[in-house]
Amino acid sequence: MTAQQNSAPAGQAGAAPAHGPLLAKDARHALHPWADLSTLGKQDALVITGAQGVEVVDSRGRRYIDAIGGMWCVTVGYGREELVEAMAAQARRMPYFTPFGDVANEPAIELAAQLAALAPGDLNRVHFTTGGSTAVDSAVRIAHLYHAAMGRPEKHHVLSRVDAYHGSTYLAASLSGKEADRVRFHYEDRWVHHLESPGHDPDNSPLSADDRLTGLLDGMEAAIARIGPENIACFVAEPVLASGGVLVPPPGYHRATRELCRRHDILYVSDEVVTGFGRLGHFFASQDRFGIVPDMITTAKGLTSGYQPLGAVLISDRIADALAGTADPGKPVFSNGFTYSGHPVACAAALANIELMRREDICGHVRDVGPYFIDRLRELRGSPIVHAVRGDHLMACVECRVPGESGPTPRNMALAQRVDAYCEAGGLLVRPYENLCIMSPPLVVDRAGIDRIAGIMAGALARAEADLRAGTVAAG
Amino acid sequence: MTAQQNSAPAGQAGAAPAHGPLLAKDARHALHPWADLSTLGKQDALVITGAQGVEVVDSRGRRYIDAIGGMWCVTVGYGREELVEAMAAQARRMPYFTPFGDVANEPAIELAAQLAALAPGDLNRVHFTTGGSTAVDSAVRIAHLYHAAMGRPEKHHVLSRVDAYHGSTYLAASLSGKEADRVRFHYEDRWVHHLESPGHDPDNSPLSADDRLTGLLDGMEAAIARIGPENIACFVAEPVLASGGVLVPPPGYHRATRELCRRHDILYVSDEVVTGFGRLGHFFASQDRFGIVPDMITTAKGLTSGYQPLGAVLISDRIADALAGTADPGKPVFSNGFTYSGHPVACAAALANIELMRREDICGHVRDVGPYFIDRLRELRGSPIVHAVRGDHLMACVECRVPGESGPTPRNMALAQRVDAYCEAGGLLVRPYENLCIMSPPLVVDRAGIDRIAGIMAGALARAEADLRAGTVAAG
Repeated sequence: MTAQQNSAPAGQAGAAPAHGPLLAKDARHALHPWADLSTLGKQDALVITGAQGVEVVDSRGRRYIDAIGGMWCVTVGYGREELVEAMAAQARRMPYFTPFGDVANEPAIELAAQLAALAPGDLNRVHFTTGGSTAVDSAVRIAHLYHAAMGRPEKHHVLSRVDAYHGSTYLAASLSGKEADRVRFHYEDRWVHHLESPGHDPDNSPLSADDRLTGLLDGMEAAIARIGPENIACFVAEPVLASGGVLVPPPGYHRATRELCRRHDILYVSDEVVTGFGRLGHFFASQDRFGIVPDMITTAKGLTSGYQPLGAVLISDRIADALAGTADPGKPVFSNGFTYSGHPVACAAALANIELMRREDICGHVRDVGPYFIDRLRELRGSPIVHAVRGDHLMACVECRVPGESGPTPRNMALAQRVDAYCEAGGLLVRPYENLCIMSPPLVVDRAGIDRIAGIMAGALARAEADLRAGTVAAG
Repeated sequence: MTAQQNSAPAGQAGAAPAHGPLLAKDARHALHPWADLSTLGKQDALVITGAQGVEVVDSRGRRYIDAIGGMWCVTVGYGREELVEAMAAQARRMPYFTPFGDVANEPAIELAAQLAALAPGDLNRVHFTTGGSTAVDSAVRIAHLYHAAMGRPEKHHVLSRVDAYHGSTYLAASLSGKEADRVRFHYEDRWVHHLESPGHDPDNSPLSADDRLTGLLDGMEAAIARIGPENIACFVAEPVLASGGVLVPPPGYHRATRELCRRHDILYVSDEVVTGFGRLGHFFASQDRFGIVPDMITTAKGLTSGYQPLGAVLISDRIADALAGTADPGKPVFSNGFTYSGHPVACAAALANIELMRREDICGHVRDVGPYFIDRLRELRGSPIVHAVRGDHLMACVECRVPGESGPTPRNMALAQRVDAYCEAGGLLVRPYENLCIMSPPLVVDRAGIDRIAGIMAGALARAEADLRAGTVAAG
């Protein structure tokens, strides 16, 4: 598909909005997440105005296949009327009431029960938040409370990993281990520790998966010994590291780290904000894909297919019972949570989303087309500017490189940006990050859609490679 | 109104839900914000199932006048079809797309422009979050980034106040200064400092307002000198301390603290999550009610009338320009923000809400009925078990006491709980906190509604007083 052909409006986009004034207002008044501060106020935004199925349309009327699923989250695709109807019906009936203390609303109660049924093991207790960052922030706080309640307040250190992404509250950002995100903000570095990045790339690593695993576990054991297990509250881990570069740990890593945590009474928090709700073919990946039952699971994104802001911490009965059993008689209050915890409209969207996922067996569909997606992308390794293709089911990335040069070097990043620009011109939105093109399409993408994604990406790689040969790809 | 009469369903509540199973699921699966851990799994929830105007209805079909406005937030009242329609239309057209980097959506852009127009001074730059906690968390991080960018990374300490409430991320909870909320969680206490609680109660204080003000300012100056102004990034302050007990500082406090911060290059963050969007009769209270232009304003709650989760930090051009001008060339990324920052459906709700507030001149209505609300409540001071009534426009509280005993003593708290229970039985929901009954009704409440609130409260006080005389109010 060429940019020329790429002009029909998608879905119910309706009349084109006033494009120029929108761009001017955005430049003047918005401070976007992950904005480039050096161009603040000077850059034209890409304004997405309409969406249908797996496609979005911008304010210029250009149409794209959305290979990032909104941002890992629009799993059931755009234009799902039953989600819209569920939200509107709830907002009409009861748009909000406090969830604090002993007050509740129906959709939040029903959703808590459904999440408990979907979660592995004894994770039967649900604490709602407003998204992934607040879910991770709350999970760490719960780990702190648990150990303090057990008489060990000093057990408050947290293990995370290099390349992890866990959100952007002060605490969640401190847990995140992406070097590119560490700027002049302040971070908690006394009691947050980052283990080695756990990815293993069998195509490019000199190590076998077993040797890699042994090295990772030795490093983790050494870190625990150095910090002291009596000081460590929890280990927070994405099953597959998402925005850090779709990094897949070697086989056996999840079970072994789970066991290590159990041995040292370190709570295992599985951050499934990205991997949950079908992206790896299951509602939760921890047990069904990686064979572990964590102490807590954090979820968001696919929970509502992105139609509403919502997050949750799923907590084991073991922890919840301990918190209840050790409640401070003078102060039994669990003083954590948000005005919008369990927002009835957001929970109604999540309930409709789960019903739709079940009815259409979207997890089954992902297990079916996921390997095809990875296979089609792996064909791109034939390009000399592709260093690696990795992923799991419907989360994947293509790592670009100038031949002979690997990693996020300035030239490699410039090359990946060129690939990204050609994808966009070709009607495909991917998520550029350093020298990676990250993809997480809506889970309803079919084989034809996957072929389109792979085809546009192949064309973009070819054009970028030609530019590289012509010497027009400059770093910086 | 007696509990007997209180049985007609409100609004579009429809058929009664299955009440018993709902309660059982909630007890088994929910961990509510501010849950009482000592009764976890054992307590029946109050399940709100329907709402219309200023009333809500529970799963037993009992109807209440909602004197807490959802939780400070349902300002335009329940059942507002135009908010529902705006949300549904946006969700149909484009329910979500990433707001990261240079990608935007129409409702978020329009809302940013409108917030800039509503905000005082040069607060023209908007960073969206998912609620009040994440707005405060982000504001402090922005203050950190600002000072670090100006070459002063050590300027990262934060001034807050005893009795403040700023949310429940790890950082926001550390800023909060409510003793009752401090449990066995972990808090940042090295660089977060709590100044004296700044309320002044002319009815009960031995100090004049001027003497009180002098004392507060002396204390703040001393704290700044002790910590060192070169170490302090920002002062975070609710104009009126809300959930800490509707504490109103003495006249002149806001201007004087603003000036003190300016003198020491301490950024002033006005936390208007509660006071913004009309509760004190203006879209923002900082300038229009208290005469100050802060460096940042945090907002949430009334921003969408609670119909959707949304928060924002409003940032001065001075700060935004400094951040842009000092951007690290190697790493110009503003790595803060959330998947759901500027969620299009939430922003569409906020836009409809602002339009409705303007069309019905809801701020003007609050300036009209607000003094009447406070006057009616102040009549309750005739009761011997009322220690104080304080507030500003449509935020107020009634402080209960066993005669001769003031403060949040066990007996006073038991007495306030009794008042709260009689209010609930009489069809009025207030927010109980320690020995206070806190009220923040929807802003559309009229004089008749205010009379109902005051009347039910008077009856509840009389019954609680009778119980006290009869010796049936026991502490603990």
